[in-house]
Amino acid sequence: MTASNGLKDMIACQTRISSIIDDKLAYGGYDIAELMENKASFEEVIYLLWNGHLPTQMEYKHFTEELRANYAISDAIEQCLLIQSRPHLHPMSVLRSTVSLLGVYNLQAEERSVEAVYSQSIQLMAKIPTIIAAFARLRSGQQPIEPRSDLGFAANFLYMLKGEEASDLEIEAMNKALILHADHELNASTFAARVCASTLTDIYSCVTTAIGALKGPLHGGANERVFDMLSEIREQGDVEAYLSEKLASQEKIMGFGHRVYKTVDPREVYLREMAGALTEGTANQDLFDISQEIEFFMKEKKGLIPNVDFYSATVYHVLGIDSSIFTLIFAMSRVSGWIAHIQEQQKNNKLIRPRSQYQGALNLHYVPINKR
Amino acid sequence: MTASNGLKDMIACQTRISSIIDDKLAYGGYDIAELMENKASFEEVIYLLWNGHLPTQMEYKHFTEELRANYAISDAIEQCLLIQSRPHLHPMSVLRSTVSLLGVYNLQAEERSVEAVYSQSIQLMAKIPTIIAAFARLRSGQQPIEPRSDLGFAANFLYMLKGEEASDLEIEAMNKALILHADHELNASTFAARVCASTLTDIYSCVTTAIGALKGPLHGGANERVFDMLSEIREQGDVEAYLSEKLASQEKIMGFGHRVYKTVDPREVYLREMAGALTEGTANQDLFDISQEIEFFMKEKKGLIPNVDFYSATVYHVLGIDSSIFTLIFAMSRVSGWIAHIQEQQKNNKLIRPRSQYQGALNLHYVPINKR
Repeated sequence: MTASNGLKDMIACQTRISSIIDDKLAYGGYDIAELMENKASFEEVIYLLWNGHLPTQMEYKHFTEELRANYAISDAIEQCLLIQSRPHLHPMSVLRSTVSLLGVYNLQAEERSVEAVYSQSIQLMAKIPTIIAAFARLRSGQQPIEPRSDLGFAANFLYMLKGEEASDLEIEAMNKALILHADHELNASTFAARVCASTLTDIYSCVTTAIGALKGPLHGGANERVFDMLSEIREQGDVEAYLSEKLASQEKIMGFGHRVYKTVDPREVYLREMAGALTEGTANQDLFDISQEIEFFMKEKKGLIPNVDFYSATVYHVLGIDSSIFTLIFAMSRVSGWIAHIQEQQKNNKLIRPRSQYQGALNLHYVPINKR
Repeated sequence: MTASNGLKDMIACQTRISSIIDDKLAYGGYDIAELMENKASFEEVIYLLWNGHLPTQMEYKHFTEELRANYAISDAIEQCLLIQSRPHLHPMSVLRSTVSLLGVYNLQAEERSVEAVYSQSIQLMAKIPTIIAAFARLRSGQQPIEPRSDLGFAANFLYMLKGEEASDLEIEAMNKALILHADHELNASTFAARVCASTLTDIYSCVTTAIGALKGPLHGGANERVFDMLSEIREQGDVEAYLSEKLASQEKIMGFGHRVYKTVDPREVYLREMAGALTEGTANQDLFDISQEIEFFMKEKKGLIPNVDFYSATVYHVLGIDSSIFTLIFAMSRVSGWIAHIQEQQKNNKLIRPRSQYQGALNLHYVPINKR
């Protein structure tokens, strides 16, 4: 047993939620290509992740009604967001605290019946977009906008963010981006959530954990840095000069390569398509053109393929999302997968408690402080 | 590779912080017996866990000065505690949120220099007792008491809790209990904190994670239930009848047995001693007598040994700590170990990202919802 290798390639649990096999990502057995090409809704995918099958019409109606009935957040939560909305506070820290507070104020948070856990899951899923949209607006000095229960998940989020209904193309892009980020097997935030869940703690503790882990620069945040790069190139104008200089000084180009995928990141394809469609003929077309040039250059010079973060930067920007909250959008989608994993862990639980290997001296004798 | 076994007996990392070998617990190579018998202070132990050696006189002076200078919490944090002080809210959820908020408001929370991490660690360590004491008082309708920088960690905590200086014996008991709970190798909260830390996220995210994990009934909370049992027996009067009935109905007797220790929980010995000394000749002597009867009965009938949670219930009660916040006291001590592990993880980091084994169907075809 080799220690200190980050449990690389070790099997930590069994799952039915998602799989990554031969550079293909599937949710509950459905390849994401099936879900994209048939225009599944994000709500169908949440249902699939939580229940292991796609909903019937009746199940879908019931599920989306429950989500929509829970979009609204309380005045207490909005008040807490207001005091955390000063622009220098870290958005992921604010989301971490606010989800933790949702748990404090949910008087059913300690209940563990199937119904109670379902209700907690629905509430978390439904309220996180409202929290994020309210936070984004408060932070830029605007009033939050009440959710609209006549709108689906993606459409309602864009409406709360901008105060006007989004176009069909924008809703399609948001919906696809949400599906593509929904789950990814045992990534670090999901594994952290499962370790936490294995103590049989409440779901809010586990989601708070996952948000804290996603905040880490080795996990979330890459598309924010992709957007920084696109903005810099936009100003300078010369893609090749910019990238050559970066590579010459050994800097990492964000949005390329992946620890698990070797030939293609299957999520990237659909985000590229949406980035193209959203920018075509608009003032943002240059962002897409620059991105394609970068992609071509990186393939040519380094043999690297773009990952999910590369085109999502353009998609989110065009949807009116500020790059400082890109990781919140990741969390808003991934919470569906986190919840699925927390429930799966707790249904057939075993405390996750490995051992460590002690490397220091032993049997030391205490010397009184006045003799040290 | 067997999956789903909770990583039992697998080595997940190397450490120099603590070891459990042959039913002996040591911190940085010092058996806890050495630390107990030589009356080490909790502050010396924190220093040891963080630095790998006991402090010199100068190091100790500097370290304790820094801790004491950081005891106070801001008005914003006290305000947040006030709105979370209603008696039905879960104390561990409140601590989780409040530590998360400490991170939101610490404008240096994103800095990663050695100095910045040290400062964040000192602040967390110093402020958590103040948060817990303020919460405990607000919850029972009392005003929080300002910390006193002329008092050490244990003495200051008891002072803030009760509003008067504790006796030498009480301070000794608190100090010993803090040392005995400070670290315990890769328990679930510590492992969750290390998984989180491995994304290189901030220390507040990791400690928030650990608090959420400790909240789980498979991890923290056992001494609260020990105290419930003692209270019930106190009312009923007959230890043997009470326990026989519980065992007959297959109920678990809290505070006995341990997954790692086989012959003795080395921490229990010192807590028993303090419980005896604190209760002798007082109105609480019956609690100690009942505890000893339970211990004798459980050894006789079940061959089980008391663990750290068994006598800590009596110690904490006698120190004036309400049983509803016993797990907060655990967190107040264990945060020293969590911080040591977070720092150790990040100093020589590798992302902790195992794999899962997919167990479901594959290559399913999407059927449109109107055909389901």
